[in-house]
Amino acid sequence: MIDDLPEGLRARHPVAEDHPKVLAVLEAWWGGLKGAAGARERALLLPRLYFQHFTTTSYLVEQGNGELAAFLVGFLSQTDPEAAYVHFVGVDPALHGRGVGRALYRSFFRLARSHGRRHVHCVTSPQNTASQAFHTRLGFTVSPVRPDYDGPGLDRVTFTRDLA
Amino acid sequence: MIDDLPEGLRARHPVAEDHPKVLAVLEAWWGGLKGAAGARERALLLPRLYFQHFTTTSYLVEQGNGELAAFLVGFLSQTDPEAAYVHFVGVDPALHGRGVGRALYRSFFRLARSHGRRHVHCVTSPQNTASQAFHTRLGFTVSPVRPDYDGPGLDRVTFTRDLA
Repeated sequence: MIDDLPEGLRARHPVAEDHPKVLAVLEAWWGGLKGAAGARERALLLPRLYFQHFTTTSYLVEQGNGELAAFLVGFLSQTDPEAAYVHFVGVDPALHGRGVGRALYRSFFRLARSHGRRHVHCVTSPQNTASQAFHTRLGFTVSPVRPDYDGPGLDRVTFTRDLA
Repeated sequence: MIDDLPEGLRARHPVAEDHPKVLAVLEAWWGGLKGAAGARERALLLPRLYFQHFTTTSYLVEQGNGELAAFLVGFLSQTDPEAAYVHFVGVDPALHGRGVGRALYRSFFRLARSHGRRHVHCVTSPQNTASQAFHTRLGFTVSPVRPDYDGPGLDRVTFTRDLA
């Protein structure tokens, strides 16, 4: 399902029952970015509906013991038949630098292409400079900070990558 | 586009530029339910992506002067070809009791049916008893409270309605 994963890691599509498992790792992996408000924000950005209705374009990566190693939650735009969207991605920090995030994105790109999509979009918070560096390395174009993009006080940086 | 709207109201599909307009009315319409945390929660549940990628299954209703009267944000499940999902609905309290919410849902049901969908799902918070009464009147089955359904502390009541 996903090429180039480090040995011992397996990928699958998520199911609704995986939702609490993903929320549980968010805090550890994000290192408490923006404190308690950030934690609440991340949980609210990832309601259960993504694990019910967008599972075919999302992935979980697990260790041999079933422990979560990484995830990607994405979807195909219903409005723009050429667009796909990556909503949330996380990789266990202990596995950073081993190409897991890159492998997840590459699989999503391939899947999106197979549905005729030509562009992938995503956003992050301006504070998340690691995410900005990662997306740049993956070939995404990074926008300037867009104040209040997702609502009052919810500034965002937006990323776009062509799939050509 | 929507039948049975009160005179003077017009419906259309939203665009990205409508996002701040919808967020701006949330607080007035929800009457500050659950205070500042509730306000932040509602904004986070409605990121801009819905106004970019799920516009064809969403509606805005406006007054003649362009003022927002109501909205419905929904999508077709990508996982379950028989399911559609209503993510967020709001009606100006000054218009409550005039069938605007009912008209929005009926249009969404018709649209979902035209895409082969057989069930509509949605959720609300246990505190939102008005929403529970409204969905019951519309023919939805209401679940018991599901603790931590959308994450720690994010209890939900779930609704399902057959489209047959």
